[in-house]
Amino acid sequence: MSELSVNHLLGIKYLNKKDISLIFETADHFKEVINRSIKKVPTLRDITIANIFFENSTRTKLSFELAEKRLSADVVNFSAGQSSVKKGETLIDTVNNILSMKVDMVVMRHPNPGAGIFLSKHVKAAIVNAGDGAHEHPTQALLDSYSIREKLGDVGDKNVVIVGDILHSRVALSNIFALKLQGANVKVCGPRTLIPKHIESLGVEVETNLKKALEWCDVANMLRVQNERMDISYFPSTREYTQQFGVNKQLLNSLDKQIVIMHPGPINRGVEITSDVADSDQSIILHQVENGVAVRMAVLYLLASKIK
Amino acid sequence: MSELSVNHLLGIKYLNKKDISLIFETADHFKEVINRSIKKVPTLRDITIANIFFENSTRTKLSFELAEKRLSADVVNFSAGQSSVKKGETLIDTVNNILSMKVDMVVMRHPNPGAGIFLSKHVKAAIVNAGDGAHEHPTQALLDSYSIREKLGDVGDKNVVIVGDILHSRVALSNIFALKLQGANVKVCGPRTLIPKHIESLGVEVETNLKKALEWCDVANMLRVQNERMDISYFPSTREYTQQFGVNKQLLNSLDKQIVIMHPGPINRGVEITSDVADSDQSIILHQVENGVAVRMAVLYLLASKIK
Amino acid sequence: MSELSVNHLLGIKYLNKKDISLIFETADHFKEVINRSIKKVPTLRDITIANIFFENSTRTKLSFELAEKRLSADVVNFSAGQSSVKKGETLIDTVNNILSMKVDMVVMRHPNPGAGIFLSKHVKAAIVNAGDGAHEHPTQALLDSYSIREKLGDVGDKNVVIVGDILHSRVALSNIFALKLQGANVKVCGPRTLIPKHIESLGVEVETNLKKALEWCDVANMLRVQNERMDISYFPSTREYTQQFGVNKQLLNSLDKQIVIMHPGPINRGVEITSDVADSDQSIILHQVENGVAVRMAVLYLLASKIK
Repeated sequence: MSELSVNHLLGIKYLNKKDISLIFETADHFKEVINRSIKKVPTLRDITIANIFFENSTRTKLSFELAEKRLSADVVNFSAGQSSVKKGETLIDTVNNILSMKVDMVVMRHPNPGAGIFLSKHVKAAIVNAGDGAHEHPTQALLDSYSIREKLGDVGDKNVVIVGDILHSRVALSNIFALKLQGANVKVCGPRTLIPKHIESLGVEVETNLKKALEWCDVANMLRVQNERMDISYFPSTREYTQQFGVNKQLLNSLDKQIVIMHPGPINRGVEITSDVADSDQSIILHQVENGVAVRMAVLYLLASKIK
Repeated sequence: MSELSVNHLLGIKYLNKKDISLIFETADHFKEVINRSIKKVPTLRDITIANIFFENSTRTKLSFELAEKRLSADVVNFSAGQSSVKKGETLIDTVNNILSMKVDMVVMRHPNPGAGIFLSKHVKAAIVNAGDGAHEHPTQALLDSYSIREKLGDVGDKNVVIVGDILHSRVALSNIFALKLQGANVKVCGPRTLIPKHIESLGVEVETNLKKALEWCDVANMLRVQNERMDISYFPSTREYTQQFGVNKQLLNSLDKQIVIMHPGPINRGVEITSDVADSDQSIILHQVENGVAVRMAVLYLLASKIK
Repeated sequence: MSELSVNHLLGIKYLNKKDISLIFETADHFKEVINRSIKKVPTLRDITIANIFFENSTRTKLSFELAEKRLSADVVNFSAGQSSVKKGETLIDTVNNILSMKVDMVVMRHPNPGAGIFLSKHVKAAIVNAGDGAHEHPTQALLDSYSIREKLGDVGDKNVVIVGDILHSRVALSNIFALKLQGANVKVCGPRTLIPKHIESLGVEVETNLKKALEWCDVANMLRVQNERMDISYFPSTREYTQQFGVNKQLLNSLDKQIVIMHPGPINRGVEITSDVADSDQSIILHQVENGVAVRMAVLYLLASKIK
């Protein structure tokens, strides 16, 4: 039987093409199960999963929790606000304590890039990176590719543009890795100051003209403007950003084809996309959210099967 | 088989008399089950319920959670503090995201009157209003009437006085609707500045003399003094309030009959009622709390049965 | 069949020697079950437990939650931050409300010494004290003794030194009671200002020289330096504390025997113990955490069996 090449999901960077196919086929199966209104499968009945969030999160945490509960895993939640972290405990001590209580998997969000990688070398449990600073957010990239595949078929050869603050975005980086691995053509589009230097070395082209980028692409993944995550001096005003990099219905209608619009959420309506775009037929934003649960079920299931 | 006339519980205003009877009979059944020490029934095993609280709550949230767990529903909790709401996401986007993850019912508390009604028009899920600003708190009114019925029999023709800050109270408004629907006689009693103008149009009489109100009634529902919810200029000092509208044992003993004392909690002991009243045989305060779980089980069960 | 002499676990002070043996034998059984990778036993399927934490806690809360879930109890969590406590409700009202919803057991942490004892006299539910101010933390002492027994055999006649701020430590007090009850020899070691006067009346000796204390003992239980819990004027600087009362590998190696090192966590690495001590073979710190779940399962199971 097929299995993942890794024991942790630390980043898309560590996966190969077969891993991605296996995750998608497994997610297909779970999605079918959910759609038949079977809310729970007993698959992970003997597994305990700790969700450790050192940063606030709504949708990602909820999506993981639902995935875990639908697999019948036991779930414990731990967030930094209530924690000994404030009392000066180290990350390894915190996590080792949790693991001593016979926890099998850790889903972790942490503000520091590489926190999950560091942890995976020091503790005995499968680690799933649910976002580590501006580094990677692998399950988001997987659900994004899964949603493209669902809408347009195989991701290979598709033209995908990622629009926004590429420099500070873990969603962008994980998406670039995932899309390139599957053979897609990728461009990034955004203010020059928010595009990392040497990004071309990842096999990605830079296009600073949004209209041209949209004319080229099959899919536009519109990143959220994250005021909270950026050094404000890099950045144009929100109004300038919207004028140059915001997508509205008029702009979409001026193209000679129907492109697919994605967004990782939460949306700033009227900033990176207007409401008539977010709510249009071209948008697959809510499908992304829906697919997130099935994709996370697949990742947890495949990693759990490697534990014993 | 009987079913509710509504698909959501947005307010008592939208129910008819038969709905209330059906909820009470269903709650009778669940209360009997709980009393036989059967803690869980598999009734909602395939239903996922999201508790979305944009305002703090202890007893209401706990009561819903217990009701949901005893029906074997899958439960996810979401509170505003941890949420993307702070990142500027709209209410509809937040809730649509949650619903995309295949959530069937939403129990929501929100500071804005009508938030649940608005939501029910824009999302596909059964909505239960767990309090919307100063508007309605329908499950509280249902459990209040259910507790009167348990103590005194049918609510019709009973004399009920609601004492306190009627103007800012969703408990008062929902109780008025529920009691009138069942044929009870209702008076409100409190400082003139805290009684809405034209309240008589709801079929309610105003009585500003507490002693007279108590002599008239079978049941007195003593509202909590909610300093946090009122424009302070409307309001007498707490000491003045207690002198005029607080109930103590001496006052109760001066009546020529045993009236029933209710309170939605949390109690300010010594303000709206004294401890010897709260803890007396006339008080059914803890029965209200107990009945809350059974009534909420009934509401969730009846709404769930309308989903498919 | 054997049962506990108490209906609540309020403190080690209220237990007898047989109670402790019974708890340990029951914990042995649960530990064996967990080690066979059976994550859940249906033992408390019809019991609802409320975890009521009026103080922040990570490991204790998580440990109780896992113990409860592995016994298949229904669990509701309640923390003071979200609660009506802030609205001025009394402790008894808060807890009575929770109990009215048919909760069978309460696990409570509270900043006031004796809060659990007070509560047990006023409410109908089994109370487990999860820490009451500087008073007792009985499950910590039980898991500490259980871990000594696991490592060295019967606790009777063993020499145990407790090092640190004895004055403000509920862990120290509960450990003293538990160790003396089992016949161990106990010394305390720390700055004079942080050792309670008349502590000898508990059958404990004071030793202010750490080296001498370590030479005497089989086990050293190193308390956490709790800056948050002490009147700063009592206390030497952290640097002075570490110089006089911190344990490092060099000091351990200078002894003519291998003593066992314990710590209730969270560790301040480099303050009360260095990393090479915490992570050494002599340290049983993570076994304490692991045993905590089994010991708490035993306590909950034994108290639950006295409910009916």
